[in-house]
Amino acid sequence: MREFEQWDGFTGRLWKEGIDVRDFIQNNYTPYDGDEKFLEGPTEATDRLWGKLQELQKEERAKGGVLDMETDVVSGITAYGAAYIDDSMKDLEQVVGLQTDKPLKRAFMPYGGIKMAEQSCETYGYKPSEKLHEIFTKYHKTHNQGVFDIYTPEMLKARHNKILTGLPDTYGRGRIVGDYRRVALYGIDYLIERKKADFAATNRQGMRRGDFQLREEIADQVRALQDMKVMAQSYGYDISEPAKNAREAVQWLYFGYLAAIKTQNGAAMSVGRVSTFLDIYIERDIEKGILTEKEAQELIDHLVMKFRMVKFARIPSYNQLFSGDPVWATLEVAGMGIDGRSIVTKNDFRFLHTLENMGPSPEPNLTVLYSENLPEAFKKYAAHISVQTSSIQYENDDVMRPVWGDDYSICCCVSATETGKEIQFFGARANLAKCLLYAINGGKDEKTKQQVAPEYQPITSEYLDYDEVMKKYDVMMDWLAHLYVGTLNMIHYMHDKYYYEAAEMALIDTDVRRTFATGIAGFSHVVDSLSAIKYAKVKVIRDEEGMAVDFETTGDFPRYGNDDDRADEIAVWLLRTFMDKLKYCHTYRDSEPTTSILTITSNVVYGKATGSLPDGRKAGEPLSPGANPSYGAEKSGLLASLNSVAKLPYEDALDGISNTQTINPGALGHNDEERTENLVHVLDGYFEQGAHHLNVNVFGTEKLIDAMEHPEKPEYANFTIRVSGYAVKFIDLTKEQQMDVIARTCHDHM
Amino acid sequence: MREFEQWDGFTGRLWKEGIDVRDFIQNNYTPYDGDEKFLEGPTEATDRLWGKLQELQKEERAKGGVLDMETDVVSGITAYGAAYIDDSMKDLEQVVGLQTDKPLKRAFMPYGGIKMAEQSCETYGYKPSEKLHEIFTKYHKTHNQGVFDIYTPEMLKARHNKILTGLPDTYGRGRIVGDYRRVALYGIDYLIERKKADFAATNRQGMRRGDFQLREEIADQVRALQDMKVMAQSYGYDISEPAKNAREAVQWLYFGYLAAIKTQNGAAMSVGRVSTFLDIYIERDIEKGILTEKEAQELIDHLVMKFRMVKFARIPSYNQLFSGDPVWATLEVAGMGIDGRSIVTKNDFRFLHTLENMGPSPEPNLTVLYSENLPEAFKKYAAHISVQTSSIQYENDDVMRPVWGDDYSICCCVSATETGKEIQFFGARANLAKCLLYAINGGKDEKTKQQVAPEYQPITSEYLDYDEVMKKYDVMMDWLAHLYVGTLNMIHYMHDKYYYEAAEMALIDTDVRRTFATGIAGFSHVVDSLSAIKYAKVKVIRDEEGMAVDFETTGDFPRYGNDDDRADEIAVWLLRTFMDKLKYCHTYRDSEPTTSILTITSNVVYGKATGSLPDGRKAGEPLSPGANPSYGAEKSGLLASLNSVAKLPYEDALDGISNTQTINPGALGHNDEERTENLVHVLDGYFEQGAHHLNVNVFGTEKLIDAMEHPEKPEYANFTIRVSGYAVKFIDLTKEQQMDVIARTCHDHM
Repeated sequence: MREFEQWDGFTGRLWKEGIDVRDFIQNNYTPYDGDEKFLEGPTEATDRLWGKLQELQKEERAKGGVLDMETDVVSGITAYGAAYIDDSMKDLEQVVGLQTDKPLKRAFMPYGGIKMAEQSCETYGYKPSEKLHEIFTKYHKTHNQGVFDIYTPEMLKARHNKILTGLPDTYGRGRIVGDYRRVALYGIDYLIERKKADFAATNRQGMRRGDFQLREEIADQVRALQDMKVMAQSYGYDISEPAKNAREAVQWLYFGYLAAIKTQNGAAMSVGRVSTFLDIYIERDIEKGILTEKEAQELIDHLVMKFRMVKFARIPSYNQLFSGDPVWATLEVAGMGIDGRSIVTKNDFRFLHTLENMGPSPEPNLTVLYSENLPEAFKKYAAHISVQTSSIQYENDDVMRPVWGDDYSICCCVSATETGKEIQFFGARANLAKCLLYAINGGKDEKTKQQVAPEYQPITSEYLDYDEVMKKYDVMMDWLAHLYVGTLNMIHYMHDKYYYEAAEMALIDTDVRRTFATGIAGFSHVVDSLSAIKYAKVKVIRDEEGMAVDFETTGDFPRYGNDDDRADEIAVWLLRTFMDKLKYCHTYRDSEPTTSILTITSNVVYGKATGSLPDGRKAGEPLSPGANPSYGAEKSGLLASLNSVAKLPYEDALDGISNTQTINPGALGHNDEERTENLVHVLDGYFEQGAHHLNVNVFGTEKLIDAMEHPEKPEYANFTIRVSGYAVKFIDLTKEQQMDVIARTCHDHM
Repeated sequence: MREFEQWDGFTGRLWKEGIDVRDFIQNNYTPYDGDEKFLEGPTEATDRLWGKLQELQKEERAKGGVLDMETDVVSGITAYGAAYIDDSMKDLEQVVGLQTDKPLKRAFMPYGGIKMAEQSCETYGYKPSEKLHEIFTKYHKTHNQGVFDIYTPEMLKARHNKILTGLPDTYGRGRIVGDYRRVALYGIDYLIERKKADFAATNRQGMRRGDFQLREEIADQVRALQDMKVMAQSYGYDISEPAKNAREAVQWLYFGYLAAIKTQNGAAMSVGRVSTFLDIYIERDIEKGILTEKEAQELIDHLVMKFRMVKFARIPSYNQLFSGDPVWATLEVAGMGIDGRSIVTKNDFRFLHTLENMGPSPEPNLTVLYSENLPEAFKKYAAHISVQTSSIQYENDDVMRPVWGDDYSICCCVSATETGKEIQFFGARANLAKCLLYAINGGKDEKTKQQVAPEYQPITSEYLDYDEVMKKYDVMMDWLAHLYVGTLNMIHYMHDKYYYEAAEMALIDTDVRRTFATGIAGFSHVVDSLSAIKYAKVKVIRDEEGMAVDFETTGDFPRYGNDDDRADEIAVWLLRTFMDKLKYCHTYRDSEPTTSILTITSNVVYGKATGSLPDGRKAGEPLSPGANPSYGAEKSGLLASLNSVAKLPYEDALDGISNTQTINPGALGHNDEERTENLVHVLDGYFEQGAHHLNVNVFGTEKLIDAMEHPEKPEYANFTIRVSGYAVKFIDLTKEQQMDVIARTCHDHM
């Protein structure tokens, strides 16, 4: 058993005998069921730094979305020396560390793909280094090149025709959450020691290439840990040993995260579940009398400020998919322990309070792990923050805890992974709506007329027959599932080879569990289309070549989003059927396949590429996002809509079922208190049914329209809304995305 | 079936329906059973170019062995523009193409290991580029770093203690022979087309990482082929299409080889079996009247001149192992077809004749594939060249043909691989003599006193008991075989990952067969030691710690090398036992394990690290090379020695059984004709018994001593001798190696 003097006052054994942050938390945290009255406002330092940052953000927006870009230095843990938000105010920063040498300056990250790295520079008028071009074309292959070296023509066609979309082959797959708490709790030297022990333990008889790969990965992890020490040293910190107080704990933890965002620009760069952990240090310091509540809040405010500053260089096609410059610095609060205690601490209040101290903000992507058993005062405070800021999301801890335990982190928008013990291979989405059209058109794409899927027999009848469509759809989904998993296998193989996440994996158990995430797009439209074919009459409109290009649907049919079992059963069938097909494919590194219904803002781009559907959605119109019912389909109010989504079994979509709802403040109540209370009731009722996720927006459509038309109004500078899977500043969305958000249902009644 | 106008006059079908150079040869070659009278002397161009090269070689020797080194350009197929032996004589060069931008200038090849590349520069006073240092340490890992990242402590210890030696972890594994003839016969475009078809064919359901690896390799091969066209273009040649005449065939083939030596500095960079192939083009041109014999010889002379110029930057430890700057540009002549026809053509004479036209030379490593059925005139001519130059070696085609067919190439010193259809993973050597001492000392190294092998019980008796030794030796060989194969598996995995031989593999079938070569060092000493233990009395001399550090052997015992079955049976047992143990280990990419008894000149270094043995060899003395009997053990003349070696079954050592013999001219006959005839008899008799290989030296020890003492004498400038596995200029050997060669048995009687 190890002992460090920095651990004085902490209890428990297991976490000292290996690496077990959860055990440390369970043994040492102080649940809090009081209200928010203890919270403190921003310090002067916070106001000044945040003021400076807001200036920089304004400047950034004025410059077209990018303040500055690196062109000559390859990002890496030790690529830069120390840097600060403002050198003249550096003593004010309670948490130090920037991604590059200047605030909001975007790093040059070529390992995912040199073309993308260069294109992102060029998009904003920067000239990428010729030397680096040479290195990453002549000497070092990148992930992107590796993948395109081995893609099959069918994969390229499926990708081009957008039946497979958003694949992480031009950017980092992300969704790996290092357990950054380990840096604070154990210090780097102990982590290196443990990794070296793991390395020794992997030495077994008859090692094969999987073993060699793992051994090399551990060697790279150890190097990354050593680099973290060097990086911290440049800021004057020695992180070899555990943090000795709250200030150091926050700083050590942030250094771990900083190493991650200096080396990866993944699909998501989540922070993880750090709130309760840090509260333990804060409580100890407050008890010792060496920290005040004011100082504690300042620490959290400054840490959050750093998460608000995370930036990556992106290419235009990425921005179209994921509008508003998100990075998914997802950070969780609340949740229940498996022992029945609430994990809510004062720190969970502090994190939510940052939205008051520094105003609303999309990042970090604050996520409340909701349970009906959470302390009432906390529930109310969270609902209050939602009503005030529309900046947070809720996920159902009561369905996730049985699967992932009580120390999981959200690794992207909504997907859970057990912290430090598990990673996810992120896999973007398959467009099941397009797949339905392929089933009808014999594998030909309705937009490009290319033969993408095998030349199965198309449907030639004038009216669609439900049984025939279902039979052909089943076969087409089979094809798609195999192609999809095969494509992802190549991507993850090459990502491991050319863009391995050493810094993040260094903070995760060597004996890691891997899930293989997939995703579904076009969900509600398939459900409603199948319902239309079953319950109404769908006439096929064909072009001169006989391809179905539109549909005339006559008669009424039940639609998903109205708590009507006839439609909702199709939804359950669709999810389960596709998931089952995925399960039968071999997955890279024997990872466990999961799926999500979670399109984020990509629903707009996906919709553009998808033809007309039997449910009445016309070609090119956005798909509805995530698991949301289709726009205009919900005719029975908010609760009926929520009930439909809640029927989808979480066990079939362990990667997440995202639902985004906007409620007119008037529908929630006459004043803030009423609204807060009613929102708690809505959440309790929704999650009690086993639903997984809810993005809550509280505003009316008229506010959105005004913000679109008058983005210059100061009240809209930080106007944040939840979109599918993350939050954005509304004025940072493209016009198209703004129109899509406005088109979404805004519930005027419950 | 493909047709090209360049193929006019060639017959056959199969080779036009895919890639099948052997079929082309079999259908089109003209066997020649005449004598050497048709041969022509050197042209003026040859004399002038060779004169210039000899000046450069002299300069090189004066500069300490290296004429010039690159420090700023990473070697690659298109790294340099056109370059010539001498710009003022470039029109004289019938075959163009240099490795770098200057003759004999050594390229910078960091992919095997940046440290080695830099060390080789520094050894000769060159300052390697800082930019390249940064690239190959910060951005691109090298083979060497990859291997050392994953080695186990046991492997490191075994390597450090030299029980495993010469492992290709600090240099390229080599021993891959591209089928360079394909460039001439098919042209690059057709080869690309076929590789693309292979790429398409590898697309199968449920692909896994092995499939991904293969697909990426093919993609890299196609890039290499495209680069070859660019390289040839820089010399004014378009090699997209097949060669249309002998001149182009020689040039196209050389471009293929040039691409290989620009990208790899492997353990061996063999040329392969090109003689008969090129003869077909020469015959066609001579028949057409567009080429004379004089011109044909000039072409071959100039091609050979290019092979004599191949150079690699080496580090001192490499030079100690493989003294004399060898590159193993091995090139075969002769052999029989499986249809019973001799494959000897006039061109085989022309290649041997280069040793007369331009004098003796170690490179290319000229190898006669010997059969008792070869035309007598050719046998005599080859023997004549041996007697004159001691520059060629013989391998038994009659034992190799049944295993490898009639189109194999020698991929290193003596190891066969089917040309274009097979590669070898080269694996250096395990020191079985040291292993015997480990068996006696319970796994402790007799030199370093380190515990290297597991702590098995040592032998503690005063006199060695044969049964006890055999039992413990068996267990120790088991350990060694597993460790050895495990180590090589890591090396080959990393070599594929960081230093893949794309240019060579582009000229080899995609569906390649892979052998996994291992090797044995200390062979004769183990045999004689075991014989001593069995037939004489061996007393152990122990140090104060009880370790066996020497032996006192009393009584007589049979020794390997005297045609005494009592010793020779131990030899057969040893080979077969170790080979059997290797067979039961898993090998990388399911390659087929083979072994060799072939130490090359490394016997000296290996001997240095090996303690005293029961056979009387003292600690630090050189081991006997390859399968040679121990120095001084052969008491019964040349033929008895040969008979002993011939008993080793080739099927148990498919990677080769190397035997090097020196015969005093006087022992062979009174004049050259007698010597030639007698040498043919010796070869016939030796190979008839199933022996595999013979290096033939015809000179007396006194000449060696004189050359050592007076290296400045002009007659020794090109004095070439066969050492184990290759030929060297005697004066280029280290003093230590020279002393070793002098100590070897020189047979004064048959």
